Amino acid sequence: MNSRFFASDNCSGIHPQIMDAIVEVNHGHVKGYGHDHITEKAISDIKQIFGNQAEVFFVFSGTGANVIGLQGCLRSYEAIICSDVAHIHTDEAGAPERFLQSKLITIPSINGKINANQIKPLLIGRGVEHHVQPKLISITQSTEYGTIYSIEEIKAITNIAKEENLYVHMDGARVSNAAAALGKSPIEFTKEAGIDVMSFGGTKNGMMMGEAVIFLNPDLAKSTMYQRKQNAQLASKMRFISAQFSAFFKDDLWLNMAVHSNRMAKALEKSLLKFKEIIITQPVEVNAIFAIFPPQIIPLLQEEFPFYVWNEFTNEVRLMCSWDTTQQDIDAFSLKVEQLINKHL
Amino acid sequence: MNSRFFASDNCSGIHPQIMDAIVEVNHGHVKGYGHDHITEKAISDIKQIFGNQAEVFFVFSGTGANVIGLQGCLRSYEAIICSDVAHIHTDEAGAPERFLQSKLITIPSINGKINANQIKPLLIGRGVEHHVQPKLISITQSTEYGTIYSIEEIKAITNIAKEENLYVHMDGARVSNAAAALGKSPIEFTKEAGIDVMSFGGTKNGMMMGEAVIFLNPDLAKSTMYQRKQNAQLASKMRFISAQFSAFFKDDLWLNMAVHSNRMAKALEKSLLKFKEIIITQPVEVNAIFAIFPPQIIPLLQEEFPFYVWNEFTNEVRLMCSWDTTQQDIDAFSLKVEQLINKHL
Amino acid sequence: MNSRFFASDNCSGIHPQIMDAIVEVNHGHVKGYGHDHITEKAISDIKQIFGNQAEVFFVFSGTGANVIGLQGCLRSYEAIICSDVAHIHTDEAGAPERFLQSKLITIPSINGKINANQIKPLLIGRGVEHHVQPKLISITQSTEYGTIYSIEEIKAITNIAKEENLYVHMDGARVSNAAAALGKSPIEFTKEAGIDVMSFGGTKNGMMMGEAVIFLNPDLAKSTMYQRKQNAQLASKMRFISAQFSAFFKDDLWLNMAVHSNRMAKALEKSLLKFKEIIITQPVEVNAIFAIFPPQIIPLLQEEFPFYVWNEFTNEVRLMCSWDTTQQDIDAFSLKVEQLINKHL
Amino acid sequence: MNSRFFASDNCSGIHPQIMDAIVEVNHGHVKGYGHDHITEKAISDIKQIFGNQAEVFFVFSGTGANVIGLQGCLRSYEAIICSDVAHIHTDEAGAPERFLQSKLITIPSINGKINANQIKPLLIGRGVEHHVQPKLISITQSTEYGTIYSIEEIKAITNIAKEENLYVHMDGARVSNAAAALGKSPIEFTKEAGIDVMSFGGTKNGMMMGEAVIFLNPDLAKSTMYQRKQNAQLASKMRFISAQFSAFFKDDLWLNMAVHSNRMAKALEKSLLKFKEIIITQPVEVNAIFAIFPPQIIPLLQEEFPFYVWNEFTNEVRLMCSWDTTQQDIDAFSLKVEQLINKHL
Repeated sequence: MNSRFFASDNCSGIHPQIMDAIVEVNHGHVKGYGHDHITEKAISDIKQIFGNQAEVFFVFSGTGANVIGLQGCLRSYEAIICSDVAHIHTDEAGAPERFLQSKLITIPSINGKINANQIKPLLIGRGVEHHVQPKLISITQSTEYGTIYSIEEIKAITNIAKEENLYVHMDGARVSNAAAALGKSPIEFTKEAGIDVMSFGGTKNGMMMGEAVIFLNPDLAKSTMYQRKQNAQLASKMRFISAQFSAFFKDDLWLNMAVHSNRMAKALEKSLLKFKEIIITQPVEVNAIFAIFPPQIIPLLQEEFPFYVWNEFTNEVRLMCSWDTTQQDIDAFSLKVEQLINKHL
Repeated sequence: MNSRFFASDNCSGIHPQIMDAIVEVNHGHVKGYGHDHITEKAISDIKQIFGNQAEVFFVFSGTGANVIGLQGCLRSYEAIICSDVAHIHTDEAGAPERFLQSKLITIPSINGKINANQIKPLLIGRGVEHHVQPKLISITQSTEYGTIYSIEEIKAITNIAKEENLYVHMDGARVSNAAAALGKSPIEFTKEAGIDVMSFGGTKNGMMMGEAVIFLNPDLAKSTMYQRKQNAQLASKMRFISAQFSAFFKDDLWLNMAVHSNRMAKALEKSLLKFKEIIITQPVEVNAIFAIFPPQIIPLLQEEFPFYVWNEFTNEVRLMCSWDTTQQDIDAFSLKVEQLINKHL
Repeated sequence: MNSRFFASDNCSGIHPQIMDAIVEVNHGHVKGYGHDHITEKAISDIKQIFGNQAEVFFVFSGTGANVIGLQGCLRSYEAIICSDVAHIHTDEAGAPERFLQSKLITIPSINGKINANQIKPLLIGRGVEHHVQPKLISITQSTEYGTIYSIEEIKAITNIAKEENLYVHMDGARVSNAAAALGKSPIEFTKEAGIDVMSFGGTKNGMMMGEAVIFLNPDLAKSTMYQRKQNAQLASKMRFISAQFSAFFKDDLWLNMAVHSNRMAKALEKSLLKFKEIIITQPVEVNAIFAIFPPQIIPLLQEEFPFYVWNEFTNEVRLMCSWDTTQQDIDAFSLKVEQLINKHL
Repeated sequence: MNSRFFASDNCSGIHPQIMDAIVEVNHGHVKGYGHDHITEKAISDIKQIFGNQAEVFFVFSGTGANVIGLQGCLRSYEAIICSDVAHIHTDEAGAPERFLQSKLITIPSINGKINANQIKPLLIGRGVEHHVQPKLISITQSTEYGTIYSIEEIKAITNIAKEENLYVHMDGARVSNAAAALGKSPIEFTKEAGIDVMSFGGTKNGMMMGEAVIFLNPDLAKSTMYQRKQNAQLASKMRFISAQFSAFFKDDLWLNMAVHSNRMAKALEKSLLKFKEIIITQPVEVNAIFAIFPPQIIPLLQEEFPFYVWNEFTNEVRLMCSWDTTQQDIDAFSLKVEQLINKHL
């Protein structure tokens, strides 16, 4: 097996500068549970980006970040509108139903995205007690299919949300990649585009573990301090998450890593376009490539370069690039593809 | 403020050998979510202690470990019996009620411990649908008051549990300290003493973050894989928790750290015994000291050596020693106490 | 407004024989919470139909019956497969998510029914902790669209369920109407067809209030006694629900009422078929008619004969017949339709 | 067994005037789920007592009423303060923990009552995320021990609540008996005494089934319409609950029944006072008597007059009088006691 592969951006390790930051804060005692100056600094770093009114809470995992953020917005009879491929719907083992006791109403997605026009037809039954009451739209930026919402697309959704008294949540497990692709500060496509609350992912972009729940609408954060603890998402030795975030945001490391992984995906796309046996199925906008591969070669490729088959019926696979993916990795993969095609097809 | 203090054993940092282990596994890609050889090794290390039948799950936090372990044992109409000072009852912001939807029935504790004889009177109403059905006894080892259950005390409890068809859970956030104090392998006072499931704490004993849920009764673990994920306690970059555990258990590091912190507590006790103005309120059996201090000096002491006032009505304070507490810390503290007493009393 | 109308079979009152039974048991004291001979008798009446192994629990409402039945089968990470028009999905305000904390996975329905072939494709991701684990198929008999599953259709579903280790639940809020339409004893299309647990509805078929949860697979009922109480579905003066059930089952009253309401729906269908402006959209198999009406006449008709518009976009309406619907009601409705069509179209 | 006995006031049947009301509304069709004129009338009847701003919701059961009322006031990390003998704590199978996911903090009671002075010491830890946050005090009127809070006692509690930003809930399963004993309108010891939300019980005072959740503080009721449905407490044929309430409140029937059952309890007390072998343990203020009986005669008495042993260790029993208890019942009971004492002691 290769030392780097394409299964997921959480298969990679920690960026050296982030690791250094962890090591660096490892001396002496500080207060636990985030009541320390390292955490204060990290929260301040995030407020530099999102403005001073933002309320920031560090948690352990992406699923944890999503449920803690959503919990600020919803009661159990209120429903979430999301895409049919949303991570919160398909890959969190039902955590939203467990933590929120709310229904998720799904919208068929195109390239991983939902469209503002799809929302209003779902709002029938409001005010009628027999039906769950839609209260929030959740979008993923960048999406589960490696695509991004433009600022205009986001605003189209948040405009309807405002009209209809809905909140908008962004699952930003890979928001760094979206920022890199859009060439915009995150505030431009979140707060300024009408997003109420977001998860800002660190783990998939070079951190060890740690995600930030950021309430751009601070009114929604009034119970979050308690909810984070009651939901077992409060780290006692918080400094070791906080230090990662400060390193992450220092000198645009987070952005540079995302720019790199996006660029590697484009390079990988380019190297695959030459194979007529391979069909790229989604626009390659961030660090993921979705493609249909000849089924004969998939398991043989996976032996050396683990990756996931996304759809077993169509042989669509997902290839993820990371902050540490190299051009050599891509060349080696491409060469292997070529050899296997020549041998088996 | 001093570089080390006595507020909590989670105010300390990470033991260098554990930090080295984190750094060492930070190369290349491995599969996420614990499907990697580093995690396999760490689970195997724990099975070396508890036997091969044990089922082991790493989670993020102590509260997470408790709720995941308890969830294997209980339905919502079933109740937990625990001490009135149990961490699950007083310090987890109601996480057990939130995750389990179960009632906690509390027993008045003496020195942080419950007694086997207190259990049977609570078992009235079994089989009657109007009443919650006690199903599990949870004990904390070492206790929230820095005391330990002897093996005989544990067996007295588990014997009643067996007779009465109850499970027994051990909150082992500080189980290392108990093992050090008892001079026993953990298996002797857990599996061999009749415990069904335990939390094995790492964070409070030199780790960065990470706790193990260990099902000694593996029948109770059948749903845990899914429950850990649904409850947002599954780390994607698991290797960085697992590597800590392997370092923790290597060459008895966990035990040596606990022996040290226990010893420091005894040294601190000794240094305080000379002050007639101070009353030690609990037996000092592990790494905690509970003592009534003259109220005038408490805030002045806390400025230099942060610690918690446990009971504001009685001026009982808690002083915790860590793996990194030194004799110098104790001497400095003791000197400061002496100066303050001389000056203010 | 007419004294009887077509909005729902729960707009009708109580059959006189059932009311007599309520009045008749209203003397003296009996033990509460179902520990009385009247309840014993009613449970025995139901066991006459479903066999002695069945476990029977009376609850207040249809939603209550569904959640109590489902709770015997599922943990929160396990999912329910049901049709996209299932009452549990669309009309219970999210009660299943609230009580079970489980995801509902929906299947596009045809005429309100799901097809055995649609199930297997949903079973991807079993054994993978990121995904909810399908554990139960819920079907509604008769369906929300007034259609029925044949015994063969049910067996096709339960056969797949057995193969795939899934339970099958039947929402029988209108199971009487299905039995009447099939001309079969309920045991033939439930227990003998592989159903594990069902709700047997009384309220929509001439009772005042009261539904029975019937576990045909009694292993699933082990916790139900406690769950019914903890979920606030245990009546203290149970005799007044039980007496209704005994009257309901006496001399086939339940069946005769269902035969009647089904017959009235056929008569109503016949009377509407003569209007070329009206399109019947679903097979009329029990006591419901779904039809597209000219939008101009809908509100005018509703003034005299309240009914629900099922789909505001297509002008599809639902007309329900009850145990007390008469031929005169139908003739009056039909006449009014004719007058309105003549006047407005 | 006697035709009337002393086990519980829910062992009795339905008052004839209430039964007549049920029969009377059983004609024709009305809209379901409370959207009918009979329900409108019943809500208006309750507003006659509590004022027009009150928000009223009918539910099925006492446990249902308590959880629906409490749910308007609390998030899961917030806690309920109640007496250690509160029905919500001891007799609802953990329904509050299940529905609210909140902790109940209990106060030792005297004669079933808590005292305003006991509350403040429980409010430590507010604002600290590790601890549940007390948010509501629940009192039972009349209490589980057949005693009543005076208006002054209630105001002492609600005054502290206002100071401390807590809500106050009244479990009024037997509030009629309290009103009768106090000789006051319910508004005087609820809304005017500072209560925010209450359960008004019908079932234990001559109704068939049905309880009212009354929000005296209407701000707390904003989600209740949906929560009632999602929690399976919404009756479809609501008119049959509503009609009971209108009959209940007509011509002070509710009060007259309560006056009667209270008077019967005093008569029973008087008849027992003559036995020196029997010790009355609680003040007899409403319709319950708690007394220690000679253990030899308890089972013999229960054969003819079922009642509950409240405390098996002390042989304290509970005798409840109902709206239908007669002086003859009391004389017969008393005679039997006398015979058994003479024979067995």
